[in-house]
Amino acid sequence: MKCRFEEYLKSLISENYVVEEAMNYSLLARSKRLRPHLLLTVLEDLDIDGSEGFACAGAIEMIHTYSLIHDDLPAFDNDDYRRGKLTNHKMYNEQIAILAGDALLTLAFETIAKSSYSAEIKVKLISYLASYAGKDGMIKGQQFDMDYENQQVSIQQLSEMETLKTGKLLALPLICALVIARREEYIETFNKIGLKLGLAFQIQDDILDVISSFQQLGKKTQSDEYNKKSTFISLLGLKEAQETFKSIYSEIYAIFDQLDYCFKETRNLIASMEKRNW
Amino acid sequence: MKCRFEEYLKSLISENYVVEEAMNYSLLARSKRLRPHLLLTVLEDLDIDGSEGFACAGAIEMIHTYSLIHDDLPAFDNDDYRRGKLTNHKMYNEQIAILAGDALLTLAFETIAKSSYSAEIKVKLISYLASYAGKDGMIKGQQFDMDYENQQVSIQQLSEMETLKTGKLLALPLICALVIARREEYIETFNKIGLKLGLAFQIQDDILDVISSFQQLGKKTQSDEYNKKSTFISLLGLKEAQETFKSIYSEIYAIFDQLDYCFKETRNLIASMEKRNW
Repeated sequence: MKCRFEEYLKSLISENYVVEEAMNYSLLARSKRLRPHLLLTVLEDLDIDGSEGFACAGAIEMIHTYSLIHDDLPAFDNDDYRRGKLTNHKMYNEQIAILAGDALLTLAFETIAKSSYSAEIKVKLISYLASYAGKDGMIKGQQFDMDYENQQVSIQQLSEMETLKTGKLLALPLICALVIARREEYIETFNKIGLKLGLAFQIQDDILDVISSFQQLGKKTQSDEYNKKSTFISLLGLKEAQETFKSIYSEIYAIFDQLDYCFKETRNLIASMEKRNW
Repeated sequence: MKCRFEEYLKSLISENYVVEEAMNYSLLARSKRLRPHLLLTVLEDLDIDGSEGFACAGAIEMIHTYSLIHDDLPAFDNDDYRRGKLTNHKMYNEQIAILAGDALLTLAFETIAKSSYSAEIKVKLISYLASYAGKDGMIKGQQFDMDYENQQVSIQQLSEMETLKTGKLLALPLICALVIARREEYIETFNKIGLKLGLAFQIQDDILDVISSFQQLGKKTQSDEYNKKSTFISLLGLKEAQETFKSIYSEIYAIFDQLDYCFKETRNLIASMEKRNW
């Protein structure tokens, strides 16, 4: 299924000019495809063929990729490497990177609008994508991330920021799968799981940032310390950060245990993320 | 109707944090609202209340505004003034300007998805918005615009670039009005009108850029000459540029004359643009 999804992604953008090339450069870069994987796994648990999720999973991956391209720009993190290769603006230039990001964001909505879902489902998916990625979701998290540079913030502020910046885009594929499967009764629960997962993911990133090397992550480590940002490590220390991480995971497992339907593969996937070293 | 639309625009974004403030700063700046006006006027010709067009007209104005914010950035035109006041990144900073643009683009799709149109009409509108503003439309024009900096281009290249960069976003409101009114038999014709209008608009901009002053335009004039870009004036000279402009307008009027329905107000609006000095 992962190979088929990768082939699907490759089929989306024909490279007629440089912005399209730059879109593919970042979209098709080596990636765990975590968000698509989450979406396809929820569908699997609901006995729905993963190919029915491709259009929406592709759209979410485009939004994730656009956010990385813009976030790497000199005006933001000014990163040189991403996913083990040069960032988009380093490979091309700032103009092209900004346009490639804009074009991926736009294509995300176009991909859903032109997919084979019913009109009602398309509209719901587009609503969720826009509201989770937009000014009340991921973008708000990015703004907070900027605000918190070079200043001491509370653990609550940092948690809220990461929940918006990362959690929203991890909750999104879970929710979208439920929309596609017409099992919307689980949306509220999976929204909670996704947001907690995002927070755990970021704490884990901070932990890995401290203990990993360039070779393992494929990007510069300890860049947050370099940028003088507050992190879960700088606020809590390594040991308490690790405990907080485990406690959030316990909450996630407890939510799964209370569900009246067994989302076994989804739970397994999320559990496997607890052990990640990437 | 224009006042009511302006009130509608003001009601869309509550200013809870700085990116939302920056979105409104540019979206609510003094503007002729040309694209919304085109959409509402086609609806008027089809005896449909303009308020039915507000959501889509607002979405198109958001896309237009996002494109201006990103186009003004230091990586692009590096402009200091827009619509008679400081550009977004000069008023705030580059990070906020990039995010405000991203957020307006996202909100455009969300606004249509959450509007009161039928699901089928929402999907059609979103498809047109994305394809006309995206990598095969406006963004492609922006890329060509970058490519053509500091080099001599042909009149065909310049025309294609302006048709994409400006024409697509002038055809869009005409087409969307026909979708909302369920009069899609006119889409092909109005697409042609819109693209020609965009080309005429840019030739006119070049003419005005040469003959106008800062006070009339509210932005720096002759910036294209400063940037060493090819313009219709530099390629054709003032007199031939004016003749080309008139000839495109004749083509537009001829298309209106061949229509089996009288789009009187739309024709009047487009005719009034022929005389503009802004």
